[in-house]
Amino acid sequence: MAFEKRLRAIGAARYHDKHPFHQMLHGGGCSMTQVRAWVINRYYYQSRIPMKDAAFLSRCEDPQLRRIWRSRIEDHDGGISEGGGIRRWLKLAEAVGLDPDFVASTHGVLAGTRFAVDAYVHFVREKPLLEAVASSLTELFAPAIHENRIAGLLKHYAFADDSALSYFRQRLNEAPQDVRFGLAFVLDHADTLEKQDAAAAALTFKTDVLWSQLDTLHSAYVAPARIPPGGWDGREGVTGALDENPLRGAAE
Amino acid sequence: MAFEKRLRAIGAARYHDKHPFHQMLHGGGCSMTQVRAWVINRYYYQSRIPMKDAAFLSRCEDPQLRRIWRSRIEDHDGGISEGGGIRRWLKLAEAVGLDPDFVASTHGVLAGTRFAVDAYVHFVREKPLLEAVASSLTELFAPAIHENRIAGLLKHYAFADDSALSYFRQRLNEAPQDVRFGLAFVLDHADTLEKQDAAAAALTFKTDVLWSQLDTLHSAYVAPARIPPGGWDGREGVTGALDENPLRGAAE
Repeated sequence: MAFEKRLRAIGAARYHDKHPFHQMLHGGGCSMTQVRAWVINRYYYQSRIPMKDAAFLSRCEDPQLRRIWRSRIEDHDGGISEGGGIRRWLKLAEAVGLDPDFVASTHGVLAGTRFAVDAYVHFVREKPLLEAVASSLTELFAPAIHENRIAGLLKHYAFADDSALSYFRQRLNEAPQDVRFGLAFVLDHADTLEKQDAAAAALTFKTDVLWSQLDTLHSAYVAPARIPPGGWDGREGVTGALDENPLRGAAE
Repeated sequence: MAFEKRLRAIGAARYHDKHPFHQMLHGGGCSMTQVRAWVINRYYYQSRIPMKDAAFLSRCEDPQLRRIWRSRIEDHDGGISEGGGIRRWLKLAEAVGLDPDFVASTHGVLAGTRFAVDAYVHFVREKPLLEAVASSLTELFAPAIHENRIAGLLKHYAFADDSALSYFRQRLNEAPQDVRFGLAFVLDHADTLEKQDAAAAALTFKTDVLWSQLDTLHSAYVAPARIPPGGWDGREGVTGALDENPLRGAAE
């Protein structure tokens, strides 16, 4: 179907699997400082996903749609005591030699990461439901990147094992059912060209949110690194061995 | 007074006059493509300032405060036919060889610029008035950068003349009275340590908004340039001579 093809072409052109930072990460080219910076900043994205989904629920009048969508919050937050995506991400943080409390404080997150992620939360809070659902469809492209990431991290990094990577394995189970529902919803509700344009723009916006996070990370922590004022210095919250040559910001 | 000193120290440590992109721009180190990219992206900031100030007015119950603050919208928007900051910025766009309609369309603006600037509009829409005012106090540090910019652009770039630079000259007249009011308001209303902390955090946030815009620009258009997918390519909307060697994105 032409519209589904159009949505998939957005991923082919713009999804962040093509960003040079991911190529470094999955190919073993990252220093531990760079891996940690990625874990710290990507945590901010994880931490805002349930808030984004709660914003969606808060605007959703159909109880059946709320019931289906609620599983996204459950997947990420887990229960009072049992695990969920956020706790699994903090397992990864521990494995790469970071204090999980430091990561969870979001104190080391770059401003550019906050701006991009917060833009996503605001988008879902403010836009029509169709566009909010469409913006979640980057999950169409996620299983491939998760498979590559698991393989690449296991191959290249000593910290990588089943416990450290449990977040990604679990997403391979969860994402396909989420995205099956989301894609069917968008194909069903985008019943005019105008709505299709809006849904395509929403998915494009979301690819920008993901790409911008990696641009910010690359700019701060890959040579010639320019850590912004107040940005994480490669040392705070580190419990493992420091890199021999931690990055320094040009702005200091 | 200690609190005013604390606010000024935030500017000394974090204001974007210290960003390497500004040093390139003011020192004559930018190509015309880089100057144009700055003009296109910075236009987005200019275009959102009156919306930010309207968000402030919309939450302001005191008519006298609204009357004073309203001049900021008037300065930027101007009248139906007479000029204002936005039209002056488009004069600069013309002078650097850009189609002003292309610039005003914001079609060439980087996603990272949008995320940073929109974060500022959301901040003013959502935070207590004291923090909204405090976030405007980067104007304390603006006259020095405008003076440097006028001198640097006149010295190094053929496009620079009084008409092209009228935006900055006019801001030298407007900003001091705005900031006198804003500083007095913040010093007067931040009457507990908790409020002082919140005001200082708001000003810090705003320095991040400005710095992040330049990081995004630098990352996209300064070697090793990584123009994000869909980012302006150095050609669209250009009416002047193209650089001999326009930048190309690594992501293409």
